[in-house]
Amino acid sequence: MPGAVENTASPASSDTGRSIGEQRPLRVGILGCGHVGAALVALLQRDAAHLGGRTGLELEIARVAVRNLSAERSVELPPSVLTRDSESLVTADDVDIVVEAMGGIEPARHLTTAALGAGKPVVTANKELIANVGEELFALAEDHGVDLAFEAAVAGGIPLIGVLRHSLIGERITRVMGIVNGTTNFILTRMTEHGADYAEVLGEAQRLGYAEADPTADVEGSDAGAKAAILAMTAFGAKVVAGDVHQEGISRIGRRDIVAAARMGHVIKLLAVAERQNGEIAVRVHPAMVPLDHPLASVRDAFNAVFLEGEAVGDVMLYGRGAGGFPTAGAMLGDLIRVAQNLRRGVCDSFGPLCAARLRPIDETFTAYHLQFDVADAPGVLAAVSGAFGQHGVSIRSVEQTTRGGATDDVAHLEFITHRAREADVAATLRDVRELSVVRRVGNAIRVIGE
Amino acid sequence: MPGAVENTASPASSDTGRSIGEQRPLRVGILGCGHVGAALVALLQRDAAHLGGRTGLELEIARVAVRNLSAERSVELPPSVLTRDSESLVTADDVDIVVEAMGGIEPARHLTTAALGAGKPVVTANKELIANVGEELFALAEDHGVDLAFEAAVAGGIPLIGVLRHSLIGERITRVMGIVNGTTNFILTRMTEHGADYAEVLGEAQRLGYAEADPTADVEGSDAGAKAAILAMTAFGAKVVAGDVHQEGISRIGRRDIVAAARMGHVIKLLAVAERQNGEIAVRVHPAMVPLDHPLASVRDAFNAVFLEGEAVGDVMLYGRGAGGFPTAGAMLGDLIRVAQNLRRGVCDSFGPLCAARLRPIDETFTAYHLQFDVADAPGVLAAVSGAFGQHGVSIRSVEQTTRGGATDDVAHLEFITHRAREADVAATLRDVRELSVVRRVGNAIRVIGE
Repeated sequence: MPGAVENTASPASSDTGRSIGEQRPLRVGILGCGHVGAALVALLQRDAAHLGGRTGLELEIARVAVRNLSAERSVELPPSVLTRDSESLVTADDVDIVVEAMGGIEPARHLTTAALGAGKPVVTANKELIANVGEELFALAEDHGVDLAFEAAVAGGIPLIGVLRHSLIGERITRVMGIVNGTTNFILTRMTEHGADYAEVLGEAQRLGYAEADPTADVEGSDAGAKAAILAMTAFGAKVVAGDVHQEGISRIGRRDIVAAARMGHVIKLLAVAERQNGEIAVRVHPAMVPLDHPLASVRDAFNAVFLEGEAVGDVMLYGRGAGGFPTAGAMLGDLIRVAQNLRRGVCDSFGPLCAARLRPIDETFTAYHLQFDVADAPGVLAAVSGAFGQHGVSIRSVEQTTRGGATDDVAHLEFITHRAREADVAATLRDVRELSVVRRVGNAIRVIGE
Repeated sequence: MPGAVENTASPASSDTGRSIGEQRPLRVGILGCGHVGAALVALLQRDAAHLGGRTGLELEIARVAVRNLSAERSVELPPSVLTRDSESLVTADDVDIVVEAMGGIEPARHLTTAALGAGKPVVTANKELIANVGEELFALAEDHGVDLAFEAAVAGGIPLIGVLRHSLIGERITRVMGIVNGTTNFILTRMTEHGADYAEVLGEAQRLGYAEADPTADVEGSDAGAKAAILAMTAFGAKVVAGDVHQEGISRIGRRDIVAAARMGHVIKLLAVAERQNGEIAVRVHPAMVPLDHPLASVRDAFNAVFLEGEAVGDVMLYGRGAGGFPTAGAMLGDLIRVAQNLRRGVCDSFGPLCAARLRPIDETFTAYHLQFDVADAPGVLAAVSGAFGQHGVSIRSVEQTTRGGATDDVAHLEFITHRAREADVAATLRDVRELSVVRRVGNAIRVIGE
């Protein structure tokens, strides 16, 4: 499985009779001219001289496919460049490189397939595409000896995919943990710093444009789940799709959880986690308590960050803007330059065949937990509750009992932090605790990292 | 100035009559087997199968040049591989790629020159070499169509150079600010978190091996200065050498400064800063007050981080281990893989000719300042002191007057924070303030970022 393969198909059109190796401009066809597509057009128009100076490349916008030719746009394009015919764009003789800035699986999938099949490299910002059908597209790219680049598909302006595919390709990475959804990080930051409620902050995020009218994909973890699949695939070279990722969102996180985290010197973050252990891979998205001195704890508002643990390089974190037109377009521009340089050199970057590692089910993964219970303030209760932990082999790292409310309340509050334990054992413990007659309320079970 | 050039010289030895493009192992010659060299040998020995699987490359340790053949080493090498003859190693027919892990300018410079001259790509971890004679070496590499890779020369295991040279090559970077010296960051972290004195923590750092017996290069900023030059050169493609960098260290930072920073919600960090403005470049190293909510503020202990400001991607930060055998060797391994892939493809990465931007002298740069004075507690004193600011056009953002000590003391304490002002004007203000008869003591003037 070579990391560098020679082109086997001709990547260039031959209409002009000129070889791609000559110093004529490389012609870019862009699918979509929304937020991201328009930002890329603006960068290519504005920075042409700068790009030429740094890279020796001349990139020319040949065609831009849009749904509505007469829509208002933030960039000016000659009418001859605009087209509604995306099907023709991806195989056109006057397009050397295709940029896919549409999003969603179809029609992006069949257009990308057609472009790669026609020997044209593709640069995409499409996380759904890569997280769901990445494997077939990488294989197709490999077959045709062309690049498929996707830096912008995860964590927008953070040069994460380049680091994993190139700088750290020789590194044995054991774990990747990322804050990869800006909406939920904004919400959790506001809840932590302003003491606000979830519903209240969600409304604010919607007003500010950080959250969509239907926020499900963000707050329930499926956006982060798709990105977790891409992280696992890229860091470990393993076959992982979005549907493989265990997902828990933040909609159940409340004031009590935020306060409990703060009391133990932690903050709650929504993490995408991909781990490799004994040849198996575990991938999941869930809220977690992160110690304040961990670099991920200081990632605030809508920023993203990805924390990598490598055997040689140790801990590495990459931080930046995870979304937005210009950060995403900036990431695509980096890909475009690499792909163009490869085209000139007659080579491409291989993703290699993905290996089929066993995906460890969530039940078999090991994590530390923070657990809260309201219990009757009576003798023997702590013994009964902690007995349930012992029965399932869940070891307790710390426990704190406080009496809440007034003297008439008769309710005690218990907070446990466990050592790393098997998820299934924690779940069984919680089932048993829930059935104890002395237990009035079982709070959220939240994972704790850094233990 | 192409970012990708075809090889003009033959990069491969022809002793065997086989082309470098064939899938025989690539033979690596390593100069030096100290901390870093030995870690690289260990990685190559341990991870050969992993590397082959991810990259299709087979890297073979052909020769390792050491000073003492019989010295104890943490790695085992066959006697046939060890040599004292570094001069022969760099031109040997059985060496395809040279790794320089010696440090210092000579003999590294002439060995690197000889290797490049013989058409062999070089991977180096040597900051002095790149920061002082980088330009001549890049030109030589270009002339011979081979790579000169230096990821490990700045910030150890952080994949910074790769990000700047590749992922962000199309980005207009306006500023780079880095914590690039682990020793001083360890000292400042201890002073901040433990309330310890500079001298005390320096002694602890020396006992722990974080600081050398002669700590001058770290604490006075010359180590960070060399790295700042490399950052400027790589981010802006500009001609900058270590001697161009204005350097101030941390040895004058005391308790009062740390406390003053904390009171305004800041921490003191030693920063390497490279800025581009109107075609000019300013490069400097100095302590600075960093607001607690800035990502650089949470970089603790001996960790490094580099914060980049790009016009399209926005703020990006890369964080990790700045030193140590394995992190540094991990960075070199990434370079080695890239260089080996390029060798197989018959291409190399051009650094391009460096442009000769004007370097803006420190006097002409603009920064906000935190200034402290002890003054007579008498009428008219604040007016006299603040008058000096006005006279030199230094605008005051905030001022706080407190009375220190007991009532018999008769001394007031003034703390000013300025808006961004020209360095020369701040210096002139300080000269005038120092001459006022009511001023008893002028404290450290410390720059403030994020204003």
